[in-house]
Amino acid sequence: MDTPQPETTLPPEDRPAESAEQLAEELSELVRTGGDDDLSQYIEWLEPREAARAVCELSDEDEVRLLERLVPQQASDLLIDVPEVEAIEAVAALPPETSAAILQQMPSNKQADLVAALAEEDADAILAEMNPTEAIKLQQLASYDPDTAGGLMQTEVVAFRENSTVEQILERMRGDAGRFRQLDIQYAYVVARGRKLVGVLRLRDLLLADDTATAGELMIEDPIALDVETPIAELDEFFDDHAFLGVPVVGAEGRLLGVVTRAAVDEQGQSNAERDYRRAMGVVQEEIRTMPTLKRSRLRLSWLSVNILLNVVAASVIAGFQSTLEQVIALAVFLPIISDMSGCSGNQAVAVSMRELSLGLIEPRELWRVWRKEATVGVLNGLALGALLGAVGWWYAGNPWLGLVVAVALGANTVVAVLIGSSLPLILKARGVDPALASGPILTTVTDMCGFFLVLGLATLMLSYLA
Amino acid sequence: MDTPQPETTLPPEDRPAESAEQLAEELSELVRTGGDDDLSQYIEWLEPREAARAVCELSDEDEVRLLERLVPQQASDLLIDVPEVEAIEAVAALPPETSAAILQQMPSNKQADLVAALAEEDADAILAEMNPTEAIKLQQLASYDPDTAGGLMQTEVVAFRENSTVEQILERMRGDAGRFRQLDIQYAYVVARGRKLVGVLRLRDLLLADDTATAGELMIEDPIALDVETPIAELDEFFDDHAFLGVPVVGAEGRLLGVVTRAAVDEQGQSNAERDYRRAMGVVQEEIRTMPTLKRSRLRLSWLSVNILLNVVAASVIAGFQSTLEQVIALAVFLPIISDMSGCSGNQAVAVSMRELSLGLIEPRELWRVWRKEATVGVLNGLALGALLGAVGWWYAGNPWLGLVVAVALGANTVVAVLIGSSLPLILKARGVDPALASGPILTTVTDMCGFFLVLGLATLMLSYLA
Repeated sequence: MDTPQPETTLPPEDRPAESAEQLAEELSELVRTGGDDDLSQYIEWLEPREAARAVCELSDEDEVRLLERLVPQQASDLLIDVPEVEAIEAVAALPPETSAAILQQMPSNKQADLVAALAEEDADAILAEMNPTEAIKLQQLASYDPDTAGGLMQTEVVAFRENSTVEQILERMRGDAGRFRQLDIQYAYVVARGRKLVGVLRLRDLLLADDTATAGELMIEDPIALDVETPIAELDEFFDDHAFLGVPVVGAEGRLLGVVTRAAVDEQGQSNAERDYRRAMGVVQEEIRTMPTLKRSRLRLSWLSVNILLNVVAASVIAGFQSTLEQVIALAVFLPIISDMSGCSGNQAVAVSMRELSLGLIEPRELWRVWRKEATVGVLNGLALGALLGAVGWWYAGNPWLGLVVAVALGANTVVAVLIGSSLPLILKARGVDPALASGPILTTVTDMCGFFLVLGLATLMLSYLA
Repeated sequence: MDTPQPETTLPPEDRPAESAEQLAEELSELVRTGGDDDLSQYIEWLEPREAARAVCELSDEDEVRLLERLVPQQASDLLIDVPEVEAIEAVAALPPETSAAILQQMPSNKQADLVAALAEEDADAILAEMNPTEAIKLQQLASYDPDTAGGLMQTEVVAFRENSTVEQILERMRGDAGRFRQLDIQYAYVVARGRKLVGVLRLRDLLLADDTATAGELMIEDPIALDVETPIAELDEFFDDHAFLGVPVVGAEGRLLGVVTRAAVDEQGQSNAERDYRRAMGVVQEEIRTMPTLKRSRLRLSWLSVNILLNVVAASVIAGFQSTLEQVIALAVFLPIISDMSGCSGNQAVAVSMRELSLGLIEPRELWRVWRKEATVGVLNGLALGALLGAVGWWYAGNPWLGLVVAVALGANTVVAVLIGSSLPLILKARGVDPALASGPILTTVTDMCGFFLVLGLATLMLSYLA
């Protein structure tokens, strides 16, 4: 490209890249020896994501010292950029009055997320440092389920009374331009007594209106609004069906409580999908590698210890058939294969059910329909996989009967696996258990036991042909 | 709640819920016997998501007939609501002129997604039915990587010349109010010759301006703009750092090409996270259960067949130690446990690396740092899990040496698993292979082989204590 480009803000490549560890060392040095201004300028000089990485690399003490010495606005910007687990720890470790000052610089929904994630005593100490009215509001906001309109809404809304004129509205907006700019609003709301929502005002409609028109005349009446308890699945559906950037949230008596933006719903959707992935992989609570080693080990063991116990239970089925195994030792080669392949088939069915649930294509009560659809695929795939493994078994042991035993066992267990796998997300979801977390261990335990039982049970019945 | 609520649009509970299959039957009946208006009204009467579900349940022939009989706008709305795999099939199955008419009703980025996903001959046939200028634009748009600014941008932007006055701008907006309303815009762009981006105009600033001011006077000069090839990770970072709802996208010579919205980036982020989850679970291509059984079976087998071969390779290690197994049959109980637990530990490390990559906390080249952090956790967890399984082994076989063998094997293999698991996403990503898809099979094959080798190799060395 030959001609000058409009300014792009992404990584200015005019200074040498430093690793997060190097930046953290410089930052740590500054925390100990530099002035407040030096610190502030250093943070300002870094890209926001670089600053966040460097802060993650700091020791807990240095991080606290750094945040105490920055002005609350800058500390708040920094904490919004670091991973949430890190921000929660920092807010808990800071003196409550510092945390309160930093929190008050954040958007309301971010404040609420952090307060909700804190231990109760830490949250109480911070709330005690705030103005009581604000503290009560924040406590209320933090009490909503994060996957509902209440948990996702921001309370910063622009509301006018019905009889306000365009002139008055514009005057108020001009007088408060800084705040309006920061809110990045497209809509204002029109409210009656008791903050009851009665209309919505598109800012661009103000462009086309006379100065003397009132909000009541310009507003769209009976605006679409969602109840504060609307779950995220319905919010997602709502924004799929409506080209809105935000929707007002109302509580009892139609009282305007806040606004949920499309961006907030999409972001939560993304973070829930990422959580599903992590949990399916056995990362129960978010881990980042700058956490202390012992904590990381403990977080991972919480999952591994459950799994090893379930594994021992499943393997106990093998122990019950030890004499068969002694006579047909070749079976030992096939036990891990049958265990792993059944897990694979079952996991596919889990993932398809999770997807259909999130797309709203199935309801938890449609178990029967799901089973019908899975049974056919399970039989086809069971035949294919069974035939393949049967051929390997025949060739390996030089005995067609051993091939038959492993073929039938894997084929039948594939059907079992898809039936269980497909239904687990529906059953767990209906019971309020996270299906991404619990489906895997339950599935593999059941399919392992069933698979071991099938192959060793069949082998025992056919022992005279195998030994 | 006692007082009337503002209208909420979510499921009107005033008619009995019907299953998607019942709705599809009614719809299928209407496709065969009803008039075009009946069909259109029936679709209108359904909630968008209900309509989408019912359409998925229709046979391919009925779906094509339905879409042919609706007006293009309604058919387009319907196709935007169904899962993308279903929409792609429908667009491919319809006569090209019908598909072209339906596509032209969609937003530009949706059109491009569908065209990019079609087989080349299907796409060409549809493009041939469009106005050549539009077809070339669409083809260009479809050629961008979906995870870049070009793939995510919409080309519908509002642009004015520098010397346009507020009066002219407002006049143009009033004259074209319908279109502006549909775009739901907050910003307009100011361009010079050759559509070179020179400024951005906030619509709300028009509120505060004189009629005679020009776009050039009101605009923010040297606006932030991103190159058309900016990858999604940088877009994500950009919107984290800036409170914008959208950012203009420019090509060579600063030419304004479109705008990427925060919502588009968040939605793509969510759909990528969901795809990672599905792929990690072995669902390589999206499957929904209304697809033909044979196709579903084939999609799943494409993954399972690779895995069964890898499993056979891994299990061949067991075959090499058959005489050891014959003498210490108890080991057969522990092989599946060691295989499964190593997979669990490795998967955790994969997920933590995937997370850190997406948070921008690690770069693919930081392998050494990741290994250092994993080695310590691997040793701790290896000790814990090894001790646990060792105790089970001792108790089960009544032989402390057998306990020692399984303890050492699982402990060492845990370290191997976290080292491999943590590095796979970094290595695969650097090579352009999808880490969510490929990490699992590579990890489990290597850890299975290594685990089997460790436990059976150790047992062979210590055979005199075990047999």
